[in-house]
Amino acid sequence: MMDIKSLLSERTQFMKASDIRELLKWVTEDVISLGGGMPDPSTFPRELADIARDVIITKGSSALQYGKTEGVDDLKDELIRFMAKDGIKASREEIIITTGSQEALDLIGRITINAGDAVITERPTYLAALQAFKAYRPRIIGVDMDSDGMIMTKLEDAIRKSINDGNKIKFIYVIPTCQNPTGISMSIDRRKHLMELASKYDLLIVEDNPYSYFLFDGIYVPPLKSMDTENRVVYMSTFSKIIAPGIRVGWVVGDKDLIRWIAMAKQAVDLHTSTLSQYIALEALRRGIIERNIPKIREAYKVKRDAMLDALAKYMPEQVTWTRPIGGMFVWASAQGIRTEDMLPMAVSKYKVAYVPGKSFYPDEDVHTSMRLNFTYPSVDMIYEGIRRLSNAIKEELSKNQH
Amino acid sequence: MMDIKSLLSERTQFMKASDIRELLKWVTEDVISLGGGMPDPSTFPRELADIARDVIITKGSSALQYGKTEGVDDLKDELIRFMAKDGIKASREEIIITTGSQEALDLIGRITINAGDAVITERPTYLAALQAFKAYRPRIIGVDMDSDGMIMTKLEDAIRKSINDGNKIKFIYVIPTCQNPTGISMSIDRRKHLMELASKYDLLIVEDNPYSYFLFDGIYVPPLKSMDTENRVVYMSTFSKIIAPGIRVGWVVGDKDLIRWIAMAKQAVDLHTSTLSQYIALEALRRGIIERNIPKIREAYKVKRDAMLDALAKYMPEQVTWTRPIGGMFVWASAQGIRTEDMLPMAVSKYKVAYVPGKSFYPDEDVHTSMRLNFTYPSVDMIYEGIRRLSNAIKEELSKNQH
Repeated sequence: MMDIKSLLSERTQFMKASDIRELLKWVTEDVISLGGGMPDPSTFPRELADIARDVIITKGSSALQYGKTEGVDDLKDELIRFMAKDGIKASREEIIITTGSQEALDLIGRITINAGDAVITERPTYLAALQAFKAYRPRIIGVDMDSDGMIMTKLEDAIRKSINDGNKIKFIYVIPTCQNPTGISMSIDRRKHLMELASKYDLLIVEDNPYSYFLFDGIYVPPLKSMDTENRVVYMSTFSKIIAPGIRVGWVVGDKDLIRWIAMAKQAVDLHTSTLSQYIALEALRRGIIERNIPKIREAYKVKRDAMLDALAKYMPEQVTWTRPIGGMFVWASAQGIRTEDMLPMAVSKYKVAYVPGKSFYPDEDVHTSMRLNFTYPSVDMIYEGIRRLSNAIKEELSKNQH
Repeated sequence: MMDIKSLLSERTQFMKASDIRELLKWVTEDVISLGGGMPDPSTFPRELADIARDVIITKGSSALQYGKTEGVDDLKDELIRFMAKDGIKASREEIIITTGSQEALDLIGRITINAGDAVITERPTYLAALQAFKAYRPRIIGVDMDSDGMIMTKLEDAIRKSINDGNKIKFIYVIPTCQNPTGISMSIDRRKHLMELASKYDLLIVEDNPYSYFLFDGIYVPPLKSMDTENRVVYMSTFSKIIAPGIRVGWVVGDKDLIRWIAMAKQAVDLHTSTLSQYIALEALRRGIIERNIPKIREAYKVKRDAMLDALAKYMPEQVTWTRPIGGMFVWASAQGIRTEDMLPMAVSKYKVAYVPGKSFYPDEDVHTSMRLNFTYPSVDMIYEGIRRLSNAIKEELSKNQH
């Protein structure tokens, strides 16, 4: 028996399994999970079965073969058309296809971050982005948000402080639309202000945009990339929510030198993203399936969001507050007087409901009163019942803490 | 316009694009490529089209959804049966599914290598393994081979020297069967000796085994993992050559603690390997397609290997020597008096033939007289014609260098 620990690199010591992953271990059949971040499988387009078959039959010698690290050119061309509707202009050389957007997060961290460099994020922010970046050991500086998104005066303070401390800022990571975990969307004024600050301090912005396809209330917010006249936004999105996560296809748009460096790193990591998956995505775009599917998913998720907000209003004690997202997949709920990570075992075992404790979404894991609630995976009935159960768990926790 | 260079991490400075990749840029339609390492697309099983369709229809809610980082359990169970025929025993907890075996190489490097640690490899060795490991900045120590594989006295010298120099050896990376690039297979005696040395010095072995499915001459060589009584072999293989590379599915077998660390690293890198691809591989195993396909591929590649060896004997000048692989995908040819990387532009532009210069397969890029020739992708006719062209290029280069 070898001593495996003695073989581990230093960077391995800094890894930890995500809380979502640990959480899933406890979840049995009778638990309603508002944790996770999965799309509703009924939104996976039925046409995918025929597409997969057609692609293998008619294009198998490419679709099953090794491919270019940067991705399939025809898919890039379809993406160029797809993104144009959001005002994003790109050429093939400015796009790379990734193995889901998780890989994009890792590769951006990998090519830019030296230990000790500064990375600025919203606070809270997507936990798997923190996990990806932290592997490269940056200082992560979280900037507080209000209902209009990241607070720009606080951002400028953070930028100035990093500069004064001599910490090179590698990028500002934001999810401006229907943020994960809070569901908050950055206002247009804030977006303009963010672009101005990035320009003023010559900073790179990493814009993560998986959710903007699902805006429920007719409010349109343009991606930062569409406002980017100085080529300082690296934009990333994914087919996970508009086709299916299981194919693992995401993409990145940015300065062509940066894309070239990302490609060089990706070559050593996995050679290229599944060509079969890329051809499936290409064909789903070409046949108009994604465009036809998005409004259906949007409508289904709107009903579920409404159900969750209604259930929260109906069941939650007055100490609990929550966000009212205009789209996306998540509601963020908070209550003074509870520690959501401590409450979770009781919520799961006694009340049979699960959620993601908010702590892991904070760069310093220093806030304990929040939780992320997903409304896209459970059915409307499960949402009502799940929120009802959760409210009972919270009431028990609050009363316990009053004694 | 941002200064992207100022944002790059130190590790990015050490990256370089692979020579294969650079080479491909020159290759036009009229060039016969013996470079690359692609399977013959006529070996991709026809049944994949129906399998993909069936999997999406009958198992879409799992096969298109997010999955466990470690991989699909049913696929692991099929792999356990598949590997048992080679004497490899494993449990689910000892297996992780990866995005091709390239990702396995990266993850093993990532979790073990600190800058300055020693990694021992065959010399020459697979260039993409060098590329993956070098991202983590180890000292790579190449150990010379003869026609029986890595020379064990030289290996022991290298181990002792590393220990004396105070450099922690993280693992010995070997491709014992039909090695890439040389085509050489390690003899059974050498395999036993390697296992003894690993035990004596308490070292981890990384066994990369993509080619053992294609042994042409009835000579069987057991994987090191089947001889591993001390759980010190990390075994990796891939579906790239027995199904198709485009699905990007590989796997790793090893000590369960090590697999757990690899899974934790993989979670931050790409969450999980395409579930669709995993279900396709699972179904191809379950329906016996892979088992039926392997003998056909073996026969097709044997014919091509024979063609290449025959063409080499027929056309090459006497200064050229080459290996006679018992299987796999590559022949390794060498000639004193030429520098294959310098000859390549002439070979491509004037003689319309491409190969991979040997230099990049050496950890220190210090040998210039060899080249890797692939026989699986080109047709038999193209092999004869390609070798004829290559022999003319070599003759020109040799005569030039004599003046």
